[in-house]
Amino acid sequence: MSSILKQPLKVALLQLKVTADKALNIANAEKRILEAAGNGAKLIILPECWNSPYAVTAFPQYAEAIPNGETTSFLSNIASKTNTFIIGGSFPENDGGKVYNTSLTFNPSGKLIAKHRKVHLFDIDVPGGVRFKESDTLSPGSSETLVELEGYGSVGVGICYDIRFPELAIRAARKGAFAMIYPGAFNMTTGPAHWELLARSRAVDNQFFTVLVSPARDLSSSYHAYGHSMVSDPWGNLLCEADENETIVYAELKPEKIAETRTSIPLYTQRRFDIYPDVSK
Amino acid sequence: MSSILKQPLKVALLQLKVTADKALNIANAEKRILEAAGNGAKLIILPECWNSPYAVTAFPQYAEAIPNGETTSFLSNIASKTNTFIIGGSFPENDGGKVYNTSLTFNPSGKLIAKHRKVHLFDIDVPGGVRFKESDTLSPGSSETLVELEGYGSVGVGICYDIRFPELAIRAARKGAFAMIYPGAFNMTTGPAHWELLARSRAVDNQFFTVLVSPARDLSSSYHAYGHSMVSDPWGNLLCEADENETIVYAELKPEKIAETRTSIPLYTQRRFDIYPDVSK
Repeated sequence: MSSILKQPLKVALLQLKVTADKALNIANAEKRILEAAGNGAKLIILPECWNSPYAVTAFPQYAEAIPNGETTSFLSNIASKTNTFIIGGSFPENDGGKVYNTSLTFNPSGKLIAKHRKVHLFDIDVPGGVRFKESDTLSPGSSETLVELEGYGSVGVGICYDIRFPELAIRAARKGAFAMIYPGAFNMTTGPAHWELLARSRAVDNQFFTVLVSPARDLSSSYHAYGHSMVSDPWGNLLCEADENETIVYAELKPEKIAETRTSIPLYTQRRFDIYPDVSK
Repeated sequence: MSSILKQPLKVALLQLKVTADKALNIANAEKRILEAAGNGAKLIILPECWNSPYAVTAFPQYAEAIPNGETTSFLSNIASKTNTFIIGGSFPENDGGKVYNTSLTFNPSGKLIAKHRKVHLFDIDVPGGVRFKESDTLSPGSSETLVELEGYGSVGVGICYDIRFPELAIRAARKGAFAMIYPGAFNMTTGPAHWELLARSRAVDNQFFTVLVSPARDLSSSYHAYGHSMVSDPWGNLLCEADENETIVYAELKPEKIAETRTSIPLYTQRRFDIYPDVSK
């Protein structure tokens, strides 16, 4: 079981402040990635929608082609320069006129090794709370994403609202992932209510790590992100948690924590697929 | 959606103190059921293993045939006498020499309408924490349980460790249950770590109510139950929570809370069964 994560992994969660100026956002990301790498992080994770405002009108305006766009180039170059794995949060992708909320993963050589398009679009309407309808301008992805980080093991990637659907995490875990990574921008209605609950419960149910990375809160923007980027270990303990401001938080993911949890509570050998089907099949 | 729960339902969670004296346990349950019914509860729920010590050696000694045993008779009679639905926690069942951890549900006429045998046996070994191996003397059940409470709607029933496996709750919800009911006896290792997390996350993921009913804590017994019987609403808010002592806590389950939650965050129409299979099929 311990071989699911082959060696300890220091992760950095970049809770970036996002502005309407893409060049400024990229410059800030560069500064923060260099800082995280300088502090020894080997996997650096950016938040959801870190290079454009989180607004349905902004997505088409800021969208870029992948891989032939400036944000892809920037992320590839900085991964190579810092010799780190980078999960580049998400940014709007334009593919033949369709716009997606897309997360790219790069290896330390700068190679693009995974692309996740948010599959569950954030269309909610909480009376007295938040209303948002990504599907006004976004199209959904059509596949789950599991990516091998060479030398460490594999992780699943979901974006924000994807976390509400337990299947992606269950399937990633059953296929051997050591963590599920969620760049995400919950808000001041759903954040206090559900952000930590979802982080910890996906971790405990699947006995792996979960990593949630939010933008910093900006009260001058139309959408107020919750912040509170965090890592839960497989027992449901938080290894780190940000407040709402721009910051980097770090955690060391230890292989033995997965092994200990799965030996203590051996859910993996106790499931009753004779009673319910295996959703990972 | 609101018709999943047809009318408001007052539930009573009986956090009973359990002794080694079965007659005393039954007498105490009777007193407390009468109290709950007198307070207007229409669904009364007992804890896991409320008529025997929670110990592998005790299960065979205390086990009874069903329905021809004194505990079945008692529960049937008191349901009829109080005109309430009773989910009789669980107690050890002897069926031809095999022993099960079994929960019975009765309607207000005293008719036995459901029998759930714990399907996931509690075999865990947390170093420095708790070790328990139900399978030393218990056999597992072989089916999930969904039961119609006439006039209200249907609920799923699981017992304690069953809650760690999300499939039972997911399937109950997708089949139209308005709540998942878990008589359960977490302990002083797993209780503080996971009891509330599991209650709230099963509720939020499935947008229905969860009801967890524990025995009271008894430090003179070999197994120290966590207590903290609780109800979570579909948003993840706790409607009631006991401390560790013998008590009854009540909650009113309101149909509109399910409807509001599912309208606000319409997970039910947003699932992507093209990407992952439906575990309820």
